[in-house]
Amino acid sequence: MGSHAVLPHPFDPLTSSEISAAIAAVRAHHGECFFNVVSLHEPRKADMLRWLAEPSRAALRPRRVADVVVIVKGGKVYDGLVDLAGPAPAITKWELMEGVQPIITMEELKLVEHVCRQDPKVIEQCRISGIPAEDMHKVYCDPWTIGFDERHGNTVRLQQALMYYRPDVDTCQYQYPLDFCPIYDADKQAIIDIDIPKVRRPLNKVKPIDYIPRAVEQAGGYRTDLKPINITQPAGVSFQMNGRELEWQNWKFHIGFNYREGIVLNNISFKDKGTYRPIFYRLSLAEMVVPYGNPEHPHQRKHAFDLGEYGAGYMTNSLSLGCDCKGSIHYLDAAFPARDGSLRTIKNAICIHEEDAGILFKHSDFRDDSVVVTRARRLIVQQIFTAANYEYAVQWIFHQDGTVQPEIKLTGILNTYALNPDEDAGPWGTCVYPGVNAHNHQHLFCLRVNPMIDGVDNSVNVVDAVPSEAPVGSKENFYGNAFYAKKTKLTTTGQSRTDYDGATSRTWEMVNEASVHPYSKKPASYKLVSREVPGLLPKEGGLVWKRAGFARHAVHVTKYKDDELWPAGRHVPQTSGEPSRGLPEWIGDGSESIANTDVVLWHTFGVTHIPAPEDFPIMPVEPITLLLRPRNFFSNNPVMDVPPSYAITPSQVAAKTKEGVVDASDRLSTLAFGDGDCCSGKSKL
Amino acid sequence: MGSHAVLPHPFDPLTSSEISAAIAAVRAHHGECFFNVVSLHEPRKADMLRWLAEPSRAALRPRRVADVVVIVKGGKVYDGLVDLAGPAPAITKWELMEGVQPIITMEELKLVEHVCRQDPKVIEQCRISGIPAEDMHKVYCDPWTIGFDERHGNTVRLQQALMYYRPDVDTCQYQYPLDFCPIYDADKQAIIDIDIPKVRRPLNKVKPIDYIPRAVEQAGGYRTDLKPINITQPAGVSFQMNGRELEWQNWKFHIGFNYREGIVLNNISFKDKGTYRPIFYRLSLAEMVVPYGNPEHPHQRKHAFDLGEYGAGYMTNSLSLGCDCKGSIHYLDAAFPARDGSLRTIKNAICIHEEDAGILFKHSDFRDDSVVVTRARRLIVQQIFTAANYEYAVQWIFHQDGTVQPEIKLTGILNTYALNPDEDAGPWGTCVYPGVNAHNHQHLFCLRVNPMIDGVDNSVNVVDAVPSEAPVGSKENFYGNAFYAKKTKLTTTGQSRTDYDGATSRTWEMVNEASVHPYSKKPASYKLVSREVPGLLPKEGGLVWKRAGFARHAVHVTKYKDDELWPAGRHVPQTSGEPSRGLPEWIGDGSESIANTDVVLWHTFGVTHIPAPEDFPIMPVEPITLLLRPRNFFSNNPVMDVPPSYAITPSQVAAKTKEGVVDASDRLSTLAFGDGDCCSGKSKL
Repeated sequence: MGSHAVLPHPFDPLTSSEISAAIAAVRAHHGECFFNVVSLHEPRKADMLRWLAEPSRAALRPRRVADVVVIVKGGKVYDGLVDLAGPAPAITKWELMEGVQPIITMEELKLVEHVCRQDPKVIEQCRISGIPAEDMHKVYCDPWTIGFDERHGNTVRLQQALMYYRPDVDTCQYQYPLDFCPIYDADKQAIIDIDIPKVRRPLNKVKPIDYIPRAVEQAGGYRTDLKPINITQPAGVSFQMNGRELEWQNWKFHIGFNYREGIVLNNISFKDKGTYRPIFYRLSLAEMVVPYGNPEHPHQRKHAFDLGEYGAGYMTNSLSLGCDCKGSIHYLDAAFPARDGSLRTIKNAICIHEEDAGILFKHSDFRDDSVVVTRARRLIVQQIFTAANYEYAVQWIFHQDGTVQPEIKLTGILNTYALNPDEDAGPWGTCVYPGVNAHNHQHLFCLRVNPMIDGVDNSVNVVDAVPSEAPVGSKENFYGNAFYAKKTKLTTTGQSRTDYDGATSRTWEMVNEASVHPYSKKPASYKLVSREVPGLLPKEGGLVWKRAGFARHAVHVTKYKDDELWPAGRHVPQTSGEPSRGLPEWIGDGSESIANTDVVLWHTFGVTHIPAPEDFPIMPVEPITLLLRPRNFFSNNPVMDVPPSYAITPSQVAAKTKEGVVDASDRLSTLAFGDGDCCSGKSKL
Repeated sequence: MGSHAVLPHPFDPLTSSEISAAIAAVRAHHGECFFNVVSLHEPRKADMLRWLAEPSRAALRPRRVADVVVIVKGGKVYDGLVDLAGPAPAITKWELMEGVQPIITMEELKLVEHVCRQDPKVIEQCRISGIPAEDMHKVYCDPWTIGFDERHGNTVRLQQALMYYRPDVDTCQYQYPLDFCPIYDADKQAIIDIDIPKVRRPLNKVKPIDYIPRAVEQAGGYRTDLKPINITQPAGVSFQMNGRELEWQNWKFHIGFNYREGIVLNNISFKDKGTYRPIFYRLSLAEMVVPYGNPEHPHQRKHAFDLGEYGAGYMTNSLSLGCDCKGSIHYLDAAFPARDGSLRTIKNAICIHEEDAGILFKHSDFRDDSVVVTRARRLIVQQIFTAANYEYAVQWIFHQDGTVQPEIKLTGILNTYALNPDEDAGPWGTCVYPGVNAHNHQHLFCLRVNPMIDGVDNSVNVVDAVPSEAPVGSKENFYGNAFYAKKTKLTTTGQSRTDYDGATSRTWEMVNEASVHPYSKKPASYKLVSREVPGLLPKEGGLVWKRAGFARHAVHVTKYKDDELWPAGRHVPQTSGEPSRGLPEWIGDGSESIANTDVVLWHTFGVTHIPAPEDFPIMPVEPITLLLRPRNFFSNNPVMDVPPSYAITPSQVAAKTKEGVVDASDRLSTLAFGDGDCCSGKSKL
């Protein structure tokens, strides 16, 4: 690849030609196989930091390496590395992986429905449910990984087929769940078993309620009282792209993308007084788990690790101008291998745009109504992925003041199960529509943060706002009003296992103890402010608890190691949780020091969703958000140089002058009903 | 007032002429006095409900009554009612109030600075601080209520003057706090005492850091890399106003405003299948307290009840087109009495506008990429008030899906105190700039919700997401994954005192047990989802704990009673907390039933703020938000009839047709860098 005029940035995803080159090399040495993963093997951090310090030194540039996973007919799985940097790609690692199942690709998922429709056992169960054999084309399935089923283990690659029916091809199938669950063998491409419940629940006969245009028109039509809100950026955007490196409002970072995590942000830094200060080496959503709360077999198998088992990259939507966001948008595509070694490109996999964000700061002096008001904006790097029924819009929101706000918007459709007409759904679910039981579930996301605040060596403190220990009436706290931020330094991986505490407004701060603020004398920090932090409801020792070790605590901290990227492990499907893969392995006996070193903070957050009929048949967006905020990082407010909309000082008020008054308020805004004096509220001049 | 062609709505604030009529009546009977309050005495709920049921029956229309508070020279306080409905206003109540101090008005506040500058004791203390007598015009004060000071009690009307210095009239004074605190007698208009600390902290000599344009220009100038984002509504807004009653996207509610709470929303209902269903009778921010965490005298007195002591209405900003919000804006003014009985009008006290709100819902079918994507918008009713140094932007955000989202954006300037150059600020504060100590504080807001979900009789449940009680391995919970929403009905006011529990994602639901959902069989409810719920950090038995009874718990519930509006009591300044006024009085022995009756839910939420230099000299907005969400209220998703941006069904994908495909995506959106195919991401047709 060295002959290209413009080399890919070491953090760039593999290009199409790099993917093809890796595939060709694998084929040349190992013959035909199914390509499961061909993705960037990320540069070793030590190498990368050396190069980032001296990017002009070509010899330091990290080599491009492909991380390859293939499945050979018969179900054998190989992990490999292909070095793409030399004159010819070289396979530097090729390892048979015993007892693991790699990620399930979209292609594998799509194969199952056809197999189900042909399978006599499935046809028979459909008949029992009330669907004649000639209607098998109306039977659909959402294939999920099997999670883990102790009867089947992990040597055979399996999927469970959640079954549905559509009376019409355009009808939302989640209104017609079927009660049985075929088990699919991916190697044989055959149904090998069917889980049939003791209580049978025949096909729901209720009239559908649909959100497709034809159904809405029939139900009374669309509302007609929405007037357009136009958002335009006639002078273009305020950000620049250098390849996949973005610069905006003092921020600079690289936007990567992989099959697993989707968006990966690297080398996030902020220009402070002319110098770029590093903040995060790498930031991503690294894993998630969606445990469902119905204990009846086989619903315990519904606990999707959407990233580790299917991939936020592989499932990502091709985004659309003027639909998924408005204004001036920049898109980035994604390239993946197809199963057969060809290439698959997702057009517009990532969108990048700016939004007005309301008031950035404002202050009026009550003495004279002198005022400054400045508007904010934010930059959003977004992807949306569809995990069968559900959609997740993942937004990385950057604010001008140095705050990073990961936000996830949940929408799409509830996973549903059949309910008999006289049957009660509770306590484990809600009857959201006649015959439709939506089970309780949690969406638990794991944010991976590798901070690099003013350098690699960082520490993590737990911060609790607590009252003074001194009693009311004592000299130290006579009126009882004393309170402070109690900081507890996490010194070992074992000690780092910490839970949320709403009562103390608990936060975690990543600090560089060597970078002391000139005024506050506190270390430069980024604070994790996260308030949607439900505990893992599946119980200790149970299946989900064992498999999703990362979700046992709100925060874990480990010492950075290359390739410790995904906290449920590298190959997640069909892990038993014995032992627990990923984070619990890395924490081990908990003795490793995490003080003042290269640390990774793993934060599990999310929501517990007790469904309601309002969520059906399609769910209005429910957002979950958290903040990474600079504290004692900047010498003062870092956005004072954002031009105000309006600013008049006391001396200008007193002088009754317009000289020096800044009036850059938006001339396009109007009064809603055109009456009155449009500027009367602005100043008393 | 009966002769007017258009009568005010019974929930309307008093009109200017009503205020004048009330003032004239008071003067005629009681002579000269200072007018502290002339505000709507809200209609008795029983009367109002009768009229709302039959608004055409003029005889049922509630009478217009003015709630009047005056202060007579010598400091006597009178509470009065003036009935404005008859041919001549009639004083129906006139009561001498012993031992209370009514709200401090802006006019009273503004008097103090002048008095301070003239006072020899203050001049002497300024001299000691390093300010010569000839520079007294550079000395400023923020007058606060004294809170409560046991040395002074509550028979004399007092303010404490927090002192500052400005080297230049345009310099932010909060950089130059002075260390002493004069106490002002409002009746005498004189300084009667000065609190002088044992450790003196002379005037800070550090160079200012300012946010005014001149200072920013001198520091390097404004950033020039922001391109405009234009937001226009060429066809106007999607809401209608009938007087102060607003209709938008099935919502209908009345927008009131008073001196105390600012915005008050009444009779909030939602049109569901053609019928307006009541949800809330009244919704407001009813009180707040900002306790500071430094125990050193006299800082314990810094715990402002900004609503009860100063008034969110009295302190509200006159808003400005294109600065405080963008697009097409509707404004409402506010009329208040001036101290001398004249009138004061705040132009544009409330702004109302719509915003695009991103994706409302989206779902793609992974089989064929058939998709629906629909954009959301929200309606915002906003006021911004300035409480001396701080600003609070209070937004009432209405979503199309029936969600109400109160949001408060904190900005403005930290309250500061002097710090000697060699002095450590910790643990009770942060040195945010040389010589400037910003004390730890909490912003605790009390949301008052009088639900009327499908009728007056409602109940409140605490809802906790908890694991099944059955152990892992048991028949009932073999895999350990069972969890459910545990509901605890609050039956008495005593039992209603409940705290937040982050671990169980605790919510509170207001339900109408008689309004059972046809599918879920659960009662119609609105759920309070609030995650920023720090405990009250001032200790039990201490001054703040005693005075701010409402802040002791996240939720209290009382049985509705007319005039139980403000949870720290009607007259808040200088209350001792012995006994605790307001909510603790109303809860009493805790035995009153709150089951299936007219209830009021009081919710205290907010943030604990440990200041950082990033907050100085002016603080970038920090938002606090919560949700009131319909659950089991609508029969299904209530926004399916919002027109989609794009919708293509499986049959349309299969037919490769554009017929019936909805493509209403925003034609104004563009590619950021103008390259590529703008529609490539839309569909695979």
